[in-house]
Amino acid sequence: MITNTNPAEGMRDLTPKEVELRNYVTSIITNSYIKFGFAQIETPCVERINFLTSGDGGDNEKMLFKILKRGDKLNLEKPNELVDLGLRYDLTVPLCRFYANNRTKLPQQFKVIQVGSVWRAERPQRGRFRQFTQCDIDIIGVKGVIAEIQLILATAEALQSLSFTDFTIRINDRRILESFARYCGFDESHFGKVFIILDKLDKIGIDGVQNELQKSDFPNASIEKFIEIVKAAMNTELTTQSISSLLPNIPENVLSDLNQVIETISAQSENKFTIKLDLSLVRGMGYYTGQIFEVGINGFNSSIAGGGRYDKMIGKILNGKEEIPACGFSIGFERVLTILEEQHFKVPKSYKKIVILYSDDIVSIGELLQKAKALRDDNNIVSLEIQNKKNTKKQLENFAEQGFTTFAIYTPDTELALKELNV
Amino acid sequence: MITNTNPAEGMRDLTPKEVELRNYVTSIITNSYIKFGFAQIETPCVERINFLTSGDGGDNEKMLFKILKRGDKLNLEKPNELVDLGLRYDLTVPLCRFYANNRTKLPQQFKVIQVGSVWRAERPQRGRFRQFTQCDIDIIGVKGVIAEIQLILATAEALQSLSFTDFTIRINDRRILESFARYCGFDESHFGKVFIILDKLDKIGIDGVQNELQKSDFPNASIEKFIEIVKAAMNTELTTQSISSLLPNIPENVLSDLNQVIETISAQSENKFTIKLDLSLVRGMGYYTGQIFEVGINGFNSSIAGGGRYDKMIGKILNGKEEIPACGFSIGFERVLTILEEQHFKVPKSYKKIVILYSDDIVSIGELLQKAKALRDDNNIVSLEIQNKKNTKKQLENFAEQGFTTFAIYTPDTELALKELNV
Repeated sequence: MITNTNPAEGMRDLTPKEVELRNYVTSIITNSYIKFGFAQIETPCVERINFLTSGDGGDNEKMLFKILKRGDKLNLEKPNELVDLGLRYDLTVPLCRFYANNRTKLPQQFKVIQVGSVWRAERPQRGRFRQFTQCDIDIIGVKGVIAEIQLILATAEALQSLSFTDFTIRINDRRILESFARYCGFDESHFGKVFIILDKLDKIGIDGVQNELQKSDFPNASIEKFIEIVKAAMNTELTTQSISSLLPNIPENVLSDLNQVIETISAQSENKFTIKLDLSLVRGMGYYTGQIFEVGINGFNSSIAGGGRYDKMIGKILNGKEEIPACGFSIGFERVLTILEEQHFKVPKSYKKIVILYSDDIVSIGELLQKAKALRDDNNIVSLEIQNKKNTKKQLENFAEQGFTTFAIYTPDTELALKELNV
Repeated sequence: MITNTNPAEGMRDLTPKEVELRNYVTSIITNSYIKFGFAQIETPCVERINFLTSGDGGDNEKMLFKILKRGDKLNLEKPNELVDLGLRYDLTVPLCRFYANNRTKLPQQFKVIQVGSVWRAERPQRGRFRQFTQCDIDIIGVKGVIAEIQLILATAEALQSLSFTDFTIRINDRRILESFARYCGFDESHFGKVFIILDKLDKIGIDGVQNELQKSDFPNASIEKFIEIVKAAMNTELTTQSISSLLPNIPENVLSDLNQVIETISAQSENKFTIKLDLSLVRGMGYYTGQIFEVGINGFNSSIAGGGRYDKMIGKILNGKEEIPACGFSIGFERVLTILEEQHFKVPKSYKKIVILYSDDIVSIGELLQKAKALRDDNNIVSLEIQNKKNTKKQLENFAEQGFTTFAIYTPDTELALKELNV
């Protein structure tokens, strides 16, 4: 007997309506990338504990769900040996293991999409769940910016197929950020901290950034130069030309690559979306090594997709020697769902959803089933339900709420009269 | 750095080919049921530990993956309090919780399909995995056999859509089995054990069944009568008429319900599949209360779907009082995949899968992207890949193996020449 029927803390049950929307979004996104030649893989939800606690997962490792060893008697003297497995907290770390494990069988240019659940024991709060869906898309093995270009184009295509029409892609390069910090005279060891503060520009404004830099005891001259350039960048339509007059120390190839991506994407966008250089774009993760990007739906606050190049991470996890070029995008799957729900998005349908009510003392089930089959063969959804004769009106209202569009009341030896259901 | 890149013991990585087939099978199955008016739900993979160890899961509870408590310092003095959660081992127990939790919002006749991963720490062996997919379909709230009929028809439809054309549905009723055991004079307390032995008929034959009954020290007279009737049932085309001459104590309504299901399904089958009464069909689970069924693909040994009515289980888990009628089917998802793979099944495709090779010193990326887009707009898959000029032939062979059907080598300012790729 169940005393508490709620899902476990931070977990959720998904209703038919929610599952329908999630399945729709999943299929639109995966099909968009598959049309660009991406292949879908899956890794197990459970991984070895040492692999999930290697440090590559950053703060996520603190939110790990750990799985108790089975079989042998547990050695309670050694708490560290109680567990051998854990639930994955992202799809990136498992991708690296997958790549290592299957490398000889994989194409040299591995274009891959993953959609799957991940688990993090975050403090439960409204709209945050401990099991949620991630959607990662990566190109492994391609050095040139054709990888970035394909990723951005395929992502734009996916968002457009989801009926997002008004979005902006912001782009920057980690190496530009480094040139920037170097140009202002910050010490190399402080770059990370400077970028973290710059990343908050959206939230705390230019004065806030200045304050936080000052609190960190960086040299005043560096801070002044830094703030001045941020202000200048904010006040102009920044281009790869204008940025090099602000920061003359950016390497030539970084600028020409960036220029190629921006020009190519702009040309392909057919004016349906915008791409623009943003010197304040940082992207939190330290593993990025080249271009970084973030997509925002205009009119909605947070970004719904982001990514960048991370040429060192896979090699480091694999064997610590090789450099394996890689570039990836992550679509904020749950964020996409939230926005679609806020917009009262309706999953497009090409069929009727019909309910046929029948009397519970029916004798001619065969005839009823034949009629239902004919409607189904005509590509409709057909559900048979016992008529509530005491309150058919209320019953039909409930079906309308469940998404049924059409109804009929079955009478033996009579043509079915289909009628529209109005909510 | 990863030292062991294999998935954790008993877990597996799924390659693009495998994911494609799984996605195809999932969509065919779910769409078949959705056309019959079923709604898809999802429950979290993680449930509270007390709910997974209540006894309702039988032997599966012994194979539980348990999750360590987080946050507080663990109390190693009390090993039973180390865990608070576990991974679900089936979809039935979570469905009961879902039903209880959402009951007021659900339609009175709740027709539901679930497809999802479950986890069991079984001894690893070839073809058995510790994470695998289950597919359960249930109708909750319908007393009459229209539930059984709809479930069987929808399941037959799903199997036919998966190109299984030659299958047999065996049907029986738990109440017939009880009449049978009672008629032979077995003690009521031994019914369960008698059924478990009968269930092995397929594997150990009639002599094996007789032996095992004798070993269990049941009365000889009962065993003789029992074996005689099993033999008689095996030697005739059993019908609801002929069975009542073998077992005159079967309640009238049980036989007429069974007759209605068999007659109705036969009439609807259009001779594409067979349904037949089988007195030796038991279905292991003790919770069944009425009709039970099992589907086998002719020519393959084990069954690929099965189910039955379980009117007492949900009520018992919910509050121990109410009886909530329920009838369900489970499709052996992994078994379906194995059979399709054995048959070298190919996922049907309505598009070309094209790879365009380009030179890595390309300057006219824009033109290349435009050509790719045009082919994509024509509903093809188009992947851009750097040409391996040293061994293009080998490279193309690899693409053919990945499922590409067509290729072209890009030359600026020249029409793309699409050519077929042969494996």
